[in-house]
Amino acid sequence: MILKNFGCAVRKFRKERGFSQEELAFRAGLHRTYIGMIERGEKNITLANIEKVAKALNIKMKALFNEL
Amino acid sequence: MILKNFGCAVRKFRKERGFSQEELAFRAGLHRTYIGMIERGEKNITLANIEKVAKALNIKMKALFNEL
Repeated sequence: MILKNFGCAVRKFRKERGFSQEELAFRAGLHRTYIGMIERGEKNITLANIEKVAKALNIKMKALFNEL
Repeated sequence: MILKNFGCAVRKFRKERGFSQEELAFRAGLHRTYIGMIERGEKNITLANIEKVAKALNIKMKALFNEL
């Protein structure tokens, strides 16, 4: 459940910024398929990668946990 | 850096609650040595385990990211 909810938060912020999964992946230095898996809650993302995603979205990490 | 800062936050909340590393580990269903590694920033903790630690500390996950 936490993985799915976190993935929804990533997707919400990504769409707000008008980024494709490819663009977010590029900005975060991660693979596009990895971003897709994160958004679908299929991957148990690590803290270091949470930071990369937050930086790529230009948000504070805690913003990704606001509704969790 | 993020791993160390996150570890400091875990330690701060753990001490506030008067828990030993052993007690936090037991409550979270994780190993004591794992908690020690997290607090020292030696482990890249996963999202699922961040949730376990937050629940064991009886805090919202975002509290662990407040100063990060």
